[in-house]
Amino acid sequence: MQKPLLSNTDMKDFNYYAPTEVVFGEQAEEQVAALVKKYGGTKVLVHYGGQSAKRSGLLDKICDLLREGGVTYVTLGGVVPNPRLSLAQKGIELCRQEGIDFILAVGGGSVIDSAKCIAYGVPYEGNVWDFYLGKAEPKQMLPVASVLTIPAAGSEMSESSVITNEDGDVKLGYSNNLSRPKFAIMNPRRTMTLPPYQTAAGVTDMMMHTMERYFTKDDDMDFTTDLAEASLRNIKNAVFAVLKNPEDYRYRAQIMWGGSLMHNGLTGCGVSDDWATHQLEHELSGMFDVTHGAGLAAIWPSWARYVMHENLSRFVRFAVNVMDVPNDFTDPEGTALKGIEAMERFYHAIGMPINIKELIGKDISDEEIKEMTRKCSRDYTATCGCLKVLKAEDMETIYKMARG
Amino acid sequence: MQKPLLSNTDMKDFNYYAPTEVVFGEQAEEQVAALVKKYGGTKVLVHYGGQSAKRSGLLDKICDLLREGGVTYVTLGGVVPNPRLSLAQKGIELCRQEGIDFILAVGGGSVIDSAKCIAYGVPYEGNVWDFYLGKAEPKQMLPVASVLTIPAAGSEMSESSVITNEDGDVKLGYSNNLSRPKFAIMNPRRTMTLPPYQTAAGVTDMMMHTMERYFTKDDDMDFTTDLAEASLRNIKNAVFAVLKNPEDYRYRAQIMWGGSLMHNGLTGCGVSDDWATHQLEHELSGMFDVTHGAGLAAIWPSWARYVMHENLSRFVRFAVNVMDVPNDFTDPEGTALKGIEAMERFYHAIGMPINIKELIGKDISDEEIKEMTRKCSRDYTATCGCLKVLKAEDMETIYKMARG
Repeated sequence: MQKPLLSNTDMKDFNYYAPTEVVFGEQAEEQVAALVKKYGGTKVLVHYGGQSAKRSGLLDKICDLLREGGVTYVTLGGVVPNPRLSLAQKGIELCRQEGIDFILAVGGGSVIDSAKCIAYGVPYEGNVWDFYLGKAEPKQMLPVASVLTIPAAGSEMSESSVITNEDGDVKLGYSNNLSRPKFAIMNPRRTMTLPPYQTAAGVTDMMMHTMERYFTKDDDMDFTTDLAEASLRNIKNAVFAVLKNPEDYRYRAQIMWGGSLMHNGLTGCGVSDDWATHQLEHELSGMFDVTHGAGLAAIWPSWARYVMHENLSRFVRFAVNVMDVPNDFTDPEGTALKGIEAMERFYHAIGMPINIKELIGKDISDEEIKEMTRKCSRDYTATCGCLKVLKAEDMETIYKMARG
Repeated sequence: MQKPLLSNTDMKDFNYYAPTEVVFGEQAEEQVAALVKKYGGTKVLVHYGGQSAKRSGLLDKICDLLREGGVTYVTLGGVVPNPRLSLAQKGIELCRQEGIDFILAVGGGSVIDSAKCIAYGVPYEGNVWDFYLGKAEPKQMLPVASVLTIPAAGSEMSESSVITNEDGDVKLGYSNNLSRPKFAIMNPRRTMTLPPYQTAAGVTDMMMHTMERYFTKDDDMDFTTDLAEASLRNIKNAVFAVLKNPEDYRYRAQIMWGGSLMHNGLTGCGVSDDWATHQLEHELSGMFDVTHGAGLAAIWPSWARYVMHENLSRFVRFAVNVMDVPNDFTDPEGTALKGIEAMERFYHAIGMPINIKELIGKDISDEEIKEMTRKCSRDYTATCGCLKVLKAEDMETIYKMARG
């Protein structure tokens, strides 16, 4: 929208909408049947991933609670990281056969994303992939909710889902406020069994969800920036406590709640978002099947060095306010660079890589970089990023800077 | 809920639910008809206060936009600060006669609170005052939304409303998640005509909404505390910009958005809330008809000095992290006291009082203090507060400390 000339700012207008009811605590699961009924569910698809939900007893517990609460259900497991369209399509068929009217995801971001895809598809006559391709807009969908077990993706409150179509190996995201989950049950105790690497990668991912919104040219929405910095500082400190003691409830709780707030829109109000690091990483995890959070850590320092002059003061602010770098007022560039270096030390301290060689354990070839560049630029037709709009040659340069 | 013994914390469980769709920006009003229709409104009661909504042209603009958007409406003005039950009852009758299915408040907290009261009452056979008396629970209510013009009360996203029953002059609040507004239209430009005193009192009120949750014995939910501190610091700085230049869009925006986030539940997740300062102030504004925010400023420093030893480290944290007091690590009490003094200087700097004499412009008598104590303690039967549970004698002591 155009601003009247009398404004003293070109602050971006925004919408904020995060309707998910969060039920947070050690006995949060106990409320699952009541919550499903509150949001209109009578027959539920309980959607989950692999063995861990079964082994931990959580899946059985949720099913028992639903049954005791008078809610009927069917189950569908098998969601994998980078959730597949084929399973979602199987879920859509199952829901139609069984007359399902509510989808409950028990798991992390992949399970929730798969649940959203199923929920879009059930009332739609065409192929649900149409939505991800941008060929159609859903008018309605089944309600979705989750019992969260892995804090990272933020899908439990967000409007987005990412699905991989194995037919052509295309990974696409689709965002629509319709898909904001009705409720999210969060029990930090359920995250205590996450291995250190997955914990650290999750924290890296959630921090990046806010960093993608923090590194912007929109300096006017201080409230958002202040909340972003407080969130980043909190999580950055909390991760050390849980790596030292995986059963530290207090800091598992910070990370779990932080993962939701750092991707539900709160840290993006009134600022443009970037997402170049995410897009550059997509190709990396596509080619080498690495953990998404680790891939982000391998890309971000190189992206940051490449784009920092687009808004140097923001990188100085990050260095000082988030990374505790002393501000050398005579040398903004030096301070900004020290902030990026401090982030690299942080990544190393939590077991994350800072370049592609550390990520994949070998040198990446020029051909592989060219192939990732081609894919990321959609055959040299598309750009990515916003702070600096990256063309194919910029992407290639960043990949080369990141090779390590 | 009781915690298993293996917890390393007694962190409080929490629910967070803030479903209001926020539409924020300079042309936000343009979306009003579409938003009403999106949330099911077909015939709207446009509820407002006095002349300012008419004079500014906002009321006419909203009505024009509704008409152009094909939404029919009736209007009801006349809401006053400390909104009256009698007007709400008139509104309930009007809504029933006219077949109203949606209530749109155009104004500040008083108008929104009155709208919520009407919305509770329309589908209820009994007297709507029953809900405020705790004699009944609403099963349903009409949807409510607002075009916000005064940032302070936070009612545009909150679940609470406060109504005064002139029959006996009783002011009661009632909170229910049903009443969370469907949407809030926020245009910072609409707040530029607020006089300095009302601007400062509004900021004092919104800061207190978060301080009532910040001063707690629950030290474990760092994420909430970190967001609270970032919010308080932001608003504390923003108010000087708008007092200097009332048309400063950038900082009007911080204050407007801050007012919502600081009372929508975000800064209270996982901590007990206190509300003693609010309850002590209620009696003050009841007896002397002063502005609520100014009354809070007159009470808080005395409350703080009286209760600070209940959680001294929290007052030290406030002094250092919010008020920029250097931490004297050898003297926590001294640091905490310096934080309270810094808050007093802040109140003075924005034109707020720091005691009752400054608030009402004369000495308060012992009899008046006794009367306020009697009312605040419900004839010596009730306590208030949580950080320190205040009995009648504590209330009287704080009122005496605050007399100035």
